[in-house]
Amino acid sequence: MQTDNLLKQVSFIKEIDKLKYIQRKTKLFNSDRHENDAEHSWHLAMMTIVLAEHSNKPIDVLKVLKMVLIHDIVEIDAGDTFIYDSIKNHTNTDEERIAAKRIFGLLPAEQAKEFIAIWEEFEEGITDEAKFAKSMDRFEPLLQNASNNGGTWTEFNVSYQKVYNKKIAIKDGSKAIWNYAKNLINECVDKGLLKKTD
Amino acid sequence: MQTDNLLKQVSFIKEIDKLKYIQRKTKLFNSDRHENDAEHSWHLAMMTIVLAEHSNKPIDVLKVLKMVLIHDIVEIDAGDTFIYDSIKNHTNTDEERIAAKRIFGLLPAEQAKEFIAIWEEFEEGITDEAKFAKSMDRFEPLLQNASNNGGTWTEFNVSYQKVYNKKIAIKDGSKAIWNYAKNLINECVDKGLLKKTD
Repeated sequence: MQTDNLLKQVSFIKEIDKLKYIQRKTKLFNSDRHENDAEHSWHLAMMTIVLAEHSNKPIDVLKVLKMVLIHDIVEIDAGDTFIYDSIKNHTNTDEERIAAKRIFGLLPAEQAKEFIAIWEEFEEGITDEAKFAKSMDRFEPLLQNASNNGGTWTEFNVSYQKVYNKKIAIKDGSKAIWNYAKNLINECVDKGLLKKTD
Repeated sequence: MQTDNLLKQVSFIKEIDKLKYIQRKTKLFNSDRHENDAEHSWHLAMMTIVLAEHSNKPIDVLKVLKMVLIHDIVEIDAGDTFIYDSIKNHTNTDEERIAAKRIFGLLPAEQAKEFIAIWEEFEEGITDEAKFAKSMDRFEPLLQNASNNGGTWTEFNVSYQKVYNKKIAIKDGSKAIWNYAKNLINECVDKGLLKKTD
C-alpha cells in the first residue's frame, strides 16, 4: 500500500514540474522577465509565513501554505487567465475543474480528495484561510507592478478603478496589509503609473 | 509596531525575488532548461506535503515547509554550489552565514532570529524535520537526472558511487523513499546513465 502510494505520488511530482512553464502576465520585480506559476507559488508561500501575523483572524498557516502552493496547478491544463480579462472568467471554470480532477487524480485517492477540497476552498474564498491566501495572491502582483513602472497596468491600459476593485479583496484577509496596499495604489496614481478615468 | 514590521517584511519580500535568478546545475524534468532556486524550493514544498506520510518519524510538516522554502535563500548572495563539487564545501560556509544574516536581517528582529534558526537547523540536519527536508532536497534532482538521460551525472561525469554516497541521506528521512531511490539509481546503472568505476 505504501509502495503503491509512493508510485502514484512520484508520478504527480513529475507531472507538476510543468507549472514551471506556465507564464504569468506579470513580471519579476524590477525586471522584463515574466514570472512563471511555480516561482509565483513559492513567493506566495514565503509571503504567507512572513505576513501571517497580519491576518484579520487567527489562521491555520499550514493550510494556507497548502492553498498557495497548489492554487495554480490547474493552470497546467487550463492555462493562466489574466485577472483583468473582462471576457474570460478568472476563477473556477469547468476547464479548471476538469484539470483539478485529472492532475490531483494522479495522487492516491484520499490525498487527491484532500487536495481538490483545499483547491476548492481557496477558489470559494469563504474561510479565513482562503481569504488570507487570496490576499497574498492579490498583493504580490501589486508589489511587482508598482516596482515595474506600472507593469501590466501600463501594458494593458488598466485603470485605477479596476485595480482598486480587484485589490480590495486584500482587506478580507488583512486590514493592515490593505492599508499598506491602498497607500501604494495611491502613490502609483500620483506617479502617473495608474490612471483615474471617468 | 505592526506598520513598522510590515515595512521590513515588504522589503524582505522584494529582496528574495532574486532567488528566481539563481540557476541550479540540474534541469527541469525532460528538459534542457536549468531550474532556478525558487522553482526548486516550490517543488520541494510540494514534495513535502505529498510525501510526509513516508517520514521515518512523525514530523512537524509546517516546520519542514519553512525549511525547504527558505533553505536556498542564502544563495542570493553566496551562489549555488554544485553538490558534487569536490573543492568547495556545499553547506554552511562563512559566505552563507553572512548572507543569512544580511537577508533574513531585513525582517523584524524576532522573525529574523526564527528564520536564521530554521535555516541552521536544516543545515545541521540533526532533527527529524531537517532529515526529512534534506531527503526531499536529495530526491528531487535524482528524479530529474533519471528523467533527463543522466542530466548532471552525464554532463559532469559523476560516478555511481558518488551519487550513492550523496543520496543515501534520503534514508535518514525516509526508508520507504530511499528504497524507491535506490532502485531508481540501480535502473540508471542498468541503462548506462550512471557508471560504476573502481
